[in-house]
Amino acid sequence: MNTKQIVLASRPKGIPQIKNFRTELIELPEIKTDEVLLKPIYFSVDPYLRSRMNDTKPDIQAFHIDQPMEGSALATVIESESDIFKPGDIVLGVLPWREYTVASDKGLQKVDATQQPLSYFLGVLGLTGITAYIGLMNICKPLAGETLVVSGAAGAVGIVAGQIARLQGCRVVGITGSDEKLRLLVGKYGFDEAINYKTTTYVNKAIATICHDGVDVYFDNVGGQISDAVISNLNIHSRVVICGQIALYNNTEIPMGPRIQQTLLAKNVMMQGFNVGNYKSEFPEAILHLTQWIKEGKLDFQETIYEGFDQLPAAFIGLFTGVNIGKMIVKV
Amino acid sequence: MNTKQIVLASRPKGIPQIKNFRTELIELPEIKTDEVLLKPIYFSVDPYLRSRMNDTKPDIQAFHIDQPMEGSALATVIESESDIFKPGDIVLGVLPWREYTVASDKGLQKVDATQQPLSYFLGVLGLTGITAYIGLMNICKPLAGETLVVSGAAGAVGIVAGQIARLQGCRVVGITGSDEKLRLLVGKYGFDEAINYKTTTYVNKAIATICHDGVDVYFDNVGGQISDAVISNLNIHSRVVICGQIALYNNTEIPMGPRIQQTLLAKNVMMQGFNVGNYKSEFPEAILHLTQWIKEGKLDFQETIYEGFDQLPAAFIGLFTGVNIGKMIVKV
Repeated sequence: MNTKQIVLASRPKGIPQIKNFRTELIELPEIKTDEVLLKPIYFSVDPYLRSRMNDTKPDIQAFHIDQPMEGSALATVIESESDIFKPGDIVLGVLPWREYTVASDKGLQKVDATQQPLSYFLGVLGLTGITAYIGLMNICKPLAGETLVVSGAAGAVGIVAGQIARLQGCRVVGITGSDEKLRLLVGKYGFDEAINYKTTTYVNKAIATICHDGVDVYFDNVGGQISDAVISNLNIHSRVVICGQIALYNNTEIPMGPRIQQTLLAKNVMMQGFNVGNYKSEFPEAILHLTQWIKEGKLDFQETIYEGFDQLPAAFIGLFTGVNIGKMIVKV
Repeated sequence: MNTKQIVLASRPKGIPQIKNFRTELIELPEIKTDEVLLKPIYFSVDPYLRSRMNDTKPDIQAFHIDQPMEGSALATVIESESDIFKPGDIVLGVLPWREYTVASDKGLQKVDATQQPLSYFLGVLGLTGITAYIGLMNICKPLAGETLVVSGAAGAVGIVAGQIARLQGCRVVGITGSDEKLRLLVGKYGFDEAINYKTTTYVNKAIATICHDGVDVYFDNVGGQISDAVISNLNIHSRVVICGQIALYNNTEIPMGPRIQQTLLAKNVMMQGFNVGNYKSEFPEAILHLTQWIKEGKLDFQETIYEGFDQLPAAFIGLFTGVNIGKMIVKV
């Protein structure tokens, strides 16, 4: 059978553009033993995929030109030559950007969608929520009464990290890029304060004013000048988790900035670069708590859903212009 | 009685100069109850004192203009109105740069100089050795077979940190500023390799060649471009302890450099700013191990000793031009 797929047509310079992608029709192979034919329902698009569009970093698995992009997805099993899955099952896996695909049954995971919205398995109950939980609880170890700042606060990870910090008794300040997001963080998600960095001339002074006792924990999703502003307000013994650097992913040269090591030294700061994939043994505990909090109504979540397979490139590009609130998902 | 003292005459811009200090004669007060009259034997001069010569950093206890500099010192008790110390005792404490001084008996510590050279209590058995031990063992937690790079390798802390890492079974590479120091590190102190950064055009490439399996632990005493070169060679799950930033202490503006957070993120690096004063509960264990290793001949140490009280400013300034090997001490 034939399927549409979206491939990487050329490597982007700076923010990816529609022209860096190409849609084409291909013929799928027959499914073999231990394989399934899948019809994706939802695709997750995530900032970290941007790094994989370059071929400069040997430590990141780069996408190949003329080969399909890929990402976390939920899919329905249409046909099965697998002992594990039967037609009708819903599975989670990393899949190519195709309307249909043939996949090995290894690396797929059946999900039970009777308790929560199905898409939550790509968000608050997926790598997004797990990232927020482990980055905060296992790395930053926040204490009640401490002040936490989260950048990219209205993004998928930020919105969860901020709420979990509130559940730990922290004072939570979000940095975000629009007044709409700011109102949502404070009004709906219980953040104590939020700063719209786009309308704030001196973000470092705004943080100093709002965080009058300094910053104890910084959950960093964005990097760049926003991080400079937060780092200048860090307390002694503060902790910084570097979860993302979305402000820098599109740079074509190594970005320059103020050297931070003297601040880390003077304040005895711990800074940890954080790839959730290196913490798999902690996943079950994270999922346990996230599920419980959702069930108890203590943890809320938000999605921005684009409709239609063809919207995958636009949804992905939108991550870098800040169009999404919460998790960006494409419904095929 | 009268004594000479050396005061901060003016705040330095850049590297301190002799003119920033002034020697003067003052009259000491009579000693009161719980006080002692001390005659310093050795003064330690340390890079971190440079930060205290500025008045810009609220988190560092700044020296006052026209007031004496101070530092760790070993001194003989001359007269005593204290129940704790008697004349002839040798004590360790933080003392003003004076030939004689009157001090409270609080904060002084009696030392037993029968086992090791007295000056070792300012070096390998003092904060220097303790800093190397805790920075390495408690923060970097090196494993046998890992590759460790130490900058400022022939400095007081570096020379100890490198040897302790060797005792843990690490491959140890030192970065230093002269061929004489390089030969000493490899020939006398058992470093596996050393790099003279002053005669090496591309330090990052030299590290990449020597550390063919990458860098697992970076013990940073210097900061700046040398650190940039090491950081570009860090492995996944590597650890960086920021113990000093001597290359930057004399900057008059916040130094700029390549942003490091993306590297920390991509490599899941832990970076810890480290002030040994925040780890006092770990001191006894550090001293225990250091003493044992010295006794067993496994840990060697080196001092650069300037003779004469008047040499204090020159010795201190020499730290920033790299004249010292190992611990810089002034014998009064």
